[in-house]
Amino acid sequence: MHPLFEKHRSVLDGALEAMRTRGYWSAYPEQPSPKVYGEAANDEGKAAALGHAGRQFELDQPGRIGWLASEHSPYGIPLEVEYPVCEPQALIDAALATMPAWQKLGVEGRTGICLEALARLNKASFEIAHAVMVTTGQGWMMAFQAGGPHAQDRGLEAVAYAYREMSSVPSAARWEKPQGKNPPLVMEKRFEIVGRGVALVIGCGTFPTWNTYPGLFAALVTGNPVIVKPHPNAILPAAISVRIVREVLAENSIDPNLVSLAVTSDPKSTQALATNPAVRSIDFTGSNVFGRWLIDNARQAQVYAELAGVNNVVIESTDSYKAMLKNLAFTLSLYSGQMCTTTQDIFVPANGIDTDEGHKSFDDVASDLGRAVDKLLSDAAVATAVLGSIQSPDTLKRIEEAPALAEIVLASRKLDNAEFPAANVHTPLLMKTDAANESVYTEERFGPITLIVKVPDAMAAIALSEKIVKERGALTVGLYSTKQEVIDAMTEATLRAGVALSINLLSNVYVNQSAAFSDYHATGANPAANASYTDSAFVANRFRVIQRRWHV
Amino acid sequence: MHPLFEKHRSVLDGALEAMRTRGYWSAYPEQPSPKVYGEAANDEGKAAALGHAGRQFELDQPGRIGWLASEHSPYGIPLEVEYPVCEPQALIDAALATMPAWQKLGVEGRTGICLEALARLNKASFEIAHAVMVTTGQGWMMAFQAGGPHAQDRGLEAVAYAYREMSSVPSAARWEKPQGKNPPLVMEKRFEIVGRGVALVIGCGTFPTWNTYPGLFAALVTGNPVIVKPHPNAILPAAISVRIVREVLAENSIDPNLVSLAVTSDPKSTQALATNPAVRSIDFTGSNVFGRWLIDNARQAQVYAELAGVNNVVIESTDSYKAMLKNLAFTLSLYSGQMCTTTQDIFVPANGIDTDEGHKSFDDVASDLGRAVDKLLSDAAVATAVLGSIQSPDTLKRIEEAPALAEIVLASRKLDNAEFPAANVHTPLLMKTDAANESVYTEERFGPITLIVKVPDAMAAIALSEKIVKERGALTVGLYSTKQEVIDAMTEATLRAGVALSINLLSNVYVNQSAAFSDYHATGANPAANASYTDSAFVANRFRVIQRRWHV
Repeated sequence: MHPLFEKHRSVLDGALEAMRTRGYWSAYPEQPSPKVYGEAANDEGKAAALGHAGRQFELDQPGRIGWLASEHSPYGIPLEVEYPVCEPQALIDAALATMPAWQKLGVEGRTGICLEALARLNKASFEIAHAVMVTTGQGWMMAFQAGGPHAQDRGLEAVAYAYREMSSVPSAARWEKPQGKNPPLVMEKRFEIVGRGVALVIGCGTFPTWNTYPGLFAALVTGNPVIVKPHPNAILPAAISVRIVREVLAENSIDPNLVSLAVTSDPKSTQALATNPAVRSIDFTGSNVFGRWLIDNARQAQVYAELAGVNNVVIESTDSYKAMLKNLAFTLSLYSGQMCTTTQDIFVPANGIDTDEGHKSFDDVASDLGRAVDKLLSDAAVATAVLGSIQSPDTLKRIEEAPALAEIVLASRKLDNAEFPAANVHTPLLMKTDAANESVYTEERFGPITLIVKVPDAMAAIALSEKIVKERGALTVGLYSTKQEVIDAMTEATLRAGVALSINLLSNVYVNQSAAFSDYHATGANPAANASYTDSAFVANRFRVIQRRWHV
Repeated sequence: MHPLFEKHRSVLDGALEAMRTRGYWSAYPEQPSPKVYGEAANDEGKAAALGHAGRQFELDQPGRIGWLASEHSPYGIPLEVEYPVCEPQALIDAALATMPAWQKLGVEGRTGICLEALARLNKASFEIAHAVMVTTGQGWMMAFQAGGPHAQDRGLEAVAYAYREMSSVPSAARWEKPQGKNPPLVMEKRFEIVGRGVALVIGCGTFPTWNTYPGLFAALVTGNPVIVKPHPNAILPAAISVRIVREVLAENSIDPNLVSLAVTSDPKSTQALATNPAVRSIDFTGSNVFGRWLIDNARQAQVYAELAGVNNVVIESTDSYKAMLKNLAFTLSLYSGQMCTTTQDIFVPANGIDTDEGHKSFDDVASDLGRAVDKLLSDAAVATAVLGSIQSPDTLKRIEEAPALAEIVLASRKLDNAEFPAANVHTPLLMKTDAANESVYTEERFGPITLIVKVPDAMAAIALSEKIVKERGALTVGLYSTKQEVIDAMTEATLRAGVALSINLLSNVYVNQSAAFSDYHATGANPAANASYTDSAFVANRFRVIQRRWHV
C-alpha cells in the first residue's frame, strides 16, 4: 500500500461513508479558528498572500515565454503579481510525458498523493483564503470557508468518488469456465486504469478554488495530467494551489509538470488550448457564451460545464414570515448575489400569501423583503462582511442599468468599506414586475439584482419556475409553502425540470449553499450545467479500463 | 421491495459479485440443451421464428402509418415479415408520457422489471436465436449463444452496473450539522434518480441482440424510455425482444410504449429521429460514416458508439505453433470474419519466428496459417456451421475485389450449404503484403479478409499495431510471444493505445470473443468505440440525481 494512501486512509473512509449516507460530514474544519489552524495561521497566511504582490510567481514550468500580471483586486488592493506565461504546447508535451509514470502508480498511489495534496492545501487555507478574498471581492468569512475548507471538501469528494469507481474494477482476475467433464478453461486477466489524456480546468473569477478543485482532482486521480487555466482576475488562489500540488508531486518523485498553470487574458489563446487534440477533458465554470463555444468546438474533449442560470423561489405561504424574509434577505445579500446559486426571481401570487402574521399582499411581501434586506445590512460591519465587493465591471454596469427594467422595491446603495476605501460595496437591488414582462426576469442578471414577479397564483408560479429551469437553467430553486399539495406539485415540477429544491428554509441554511458530501451542486439535467459536483457521472468517464488476458 | 426485484435478487447478486471479481460467471445457460430449455424448445422456437414470415408483426404501437418488410435472409429463407411503421413523433410523445410512472417505480422496481424481461428473453432464446440466424447469416450455434444467452448476459451486466450506480445514491438522508453549544442544524433530504429523456438504440445487421441489449437495458433501468431502431435487415430479433419487454411492462401496469420499435430503411428518417430534441441518448453500432454523423449532428444526445476498427495480432514467437495456427484459423473463419472483433491484420517479422517446431520464415507462417484454415474448414458440415453466410452484399463485393490488393496466400472459396442452397458461404481470404503498403491493411475490410503483413522485426510490429489502434481504432489485439520483454512492450503499447490484449491464446478462447462480466468489450479509449460494455461510464451518465431538502 502506498504510504500516503495509508496516511490518509481514515479521511478517505470518512468521505466514502459520507457519500453512502449523504449525511453531514466534512474533512476540513470550516472555522478559521486559531485552535485548529494555529495562532499565527491568519497573520502568516495573510502575509504570504499579500507577499506575492509585485513579484514574479515562480513555478518552474517549461516553455516560459513571458510574464503576465492581469489581476485587479475588487478591494483596490495592489496586486501586480506576475505569473509565468508558458507556450501551451510545451505544457501539453510535458503533461503527456508524465502520464505513464502517473498511471503506473496505480489507484492507491494516485489517491494517496491527491489526499496529501488536499491536506497540504488545507494547511495553506489562510494564504489561499486571503488570495481568494483579494482577487474575488468576497468577504473574509466566505473567502475562508468557500475558498478553503469547503473547496477542499469538494476536491476530496471528487477524489473519493473517483476512488470508489476505480477501486470497483479489480486489478486482476482468474477466469475459470467449466467444460463439463473436461478440465476448465482457465485464464489470468489484468485490468489497468488509464487516464484519457490532458485535462484542462478553466476557472471562474468568483470562486477560483471551489469551482476548480472538483475538476482538477477528479481528472488527476483518474490518471490524467491537468492544466489549470484560471480566470485572468483570479489567478493567485489557483497559482498557490498548483504550486502546492506540484510540490507534493515532486516530493513523491512524480514529474511536477503533471499539474501546471496556464495564464492568459486572451480568450483566443484559451480557445487554442481547449481545442488541442491532446486535451481530452475540459472542466469549465463561466459564461454561457464561452461554455457553448467550448461544447461546440472542443469536440475532441468531454466538456463538464457549469454555465448561467436563472435561480428562482416560489412563495405560496409560510408559517414563519419573519424567518422566511430573513433567510431570503441573507441569500440575496451574500457576496452581493455574485454566486451561481443566488436566487434571481421570486414568484409571488398576485393576491398575496397566507402567513403566521396574517394575509400579506404581493406588495407587502415585496416591501417586507426589502425591509428585511435593509435591516440585515443596517450594521456597516455586517454589511461589508456579507456583501464583499463587486468583482466585475460588468456587474457594476448591470446594477447601474437594471433600475430601468422594472419598479424599484429597494434601491441598491453603495456603501463605504472603512478598511478598503476602493471597494465597490453594493447592496441588493429589489424590483417588482408582472409575470407578463418575461424579458425582465427570464434572463440571467448576475449580481445583486432580484425580481419579485407577480404571478396569477401558486400553480402558475410553479409552472413558471419549471419553464424557466427547463429553458434557462438553474442550479437552485426554493419553495415556501405550508400546503403539502403545493410542496408535492413543486417537487414534481423540479423532477421534470431537473433541479434541486429547497423547501421552507428558515434557519441557517440558505438556498444558495450546497454542502459537499450531502448536496449535489447542479444536476446536469437542465441548461445551467451538464454535470454535477459530485456524482458517478462526474468521474466515471475520466478513465478507461484496459485489460489483458492469457491462458494459465 | 418490488416482487420482481425479490424474485430475481439472486441473479442480480450473482452479477454484482461477478463484476467485483470479474471471474467467470453467466446467468443464462449457453448450451442449447433440451435439459435446460425443454425438449420442445428448439422445435417450438424455430416454428415461432419462421412463423412470423409473411405476416404482420403486431406491436400495438401508436401512430402507425404503414408496414415495412425489408429483410432478406442471407440463407435465402423467405421472410417478408411486415413491421409497423410508426410516426416518430408519436413514438416519442408516447415514450415521454411513460417517464414519470417509470421514474416513480424507483430503482428496485425498474431493476426487477428489467430482470424479469431478461428472464423472459432467456425463455424465448430459441425463437430469438432462429430469428438471429435467418436474418444475420450466423451459424446456428453462434446465433444461439451470441444472440441468446450471451446477449442476455450483456443486458444483465448493463442492468447490474446501472443498479450498482443508482443504489449507491441513498434515497433519503438526515443531515445534522453540529453548531457548537447550540442545537445542531437538522435537515431531511431526498434524492430521486431521474432518466435523461428518450433513449434511441440503433442496432447493427450482424448482432441484432448482442449489440442492442446493453444500450436498451442500461437506458431503461436508469429511468429512460427506449426506442429500438434495428438494422433494416435484422429487425425480427429486435422486434421479438421489444414485444417481450412490452408484455412484461404491461403485466406490471407500466405503459408498454416505454419501449417501442422504430423501423425504417431510410437513413434520413433515422437521422430525423436521432436529432429530435427529446432524444437524449443514442446507442449505435455500425459504420464510421453514420456513427460520425450521429456524433456530429445529434448534439442534444449523449452518443455511445461502436464503430469500425482494424483489429490486429502480432506474432513474434510461440512454443505451440500448431495450436496457435488452429486458434487463429478459427478466429478468422468464425462467421466468415463478420465480427467487429475479428482480426484483420497479422504482423509477422520479415525474418520469421521461432517456434517449438523450429524457425519458421514469414512465408512459412503465412502458408501454414492458410493450411490451418483449410484444414478447419475441410469438413463441409463444420465449415457451414462455423462460416454461416455472408450478411451483406457489400461484404460479398469486398471478397470479390480484395484479391487485387495483395499476394494471395489462400483464396476464398464459395461453399455449398446443403440445407440452404441460396446461402453465401465464403471461406477466408488470406493475403500477404509488406508493411510499406499501408493502404492495403490500414483500412477496415469487414468480412473474411486477412492481411499477413511483413514487418522489419517484432518491435516494428508492436509499433505498427499501436499506430493502427491509435489512428484507426481496434476492439481487439493479440500477441504471440514466448519472451517476457516482448509481452511487456506489447502491454505498454496497448496501454498507450487503449485496447484489450490477448496473449498467446491457444485453446478454446479466441481473440474475437469477449465474455460478459469478465472481458470489457471495447475500451472507449481508441477510435473504434467511445464506450465499453460495460463499465461505470456506460451507465453513470444515463440518469441524474434530483434532490430536495427541508428543515426538521
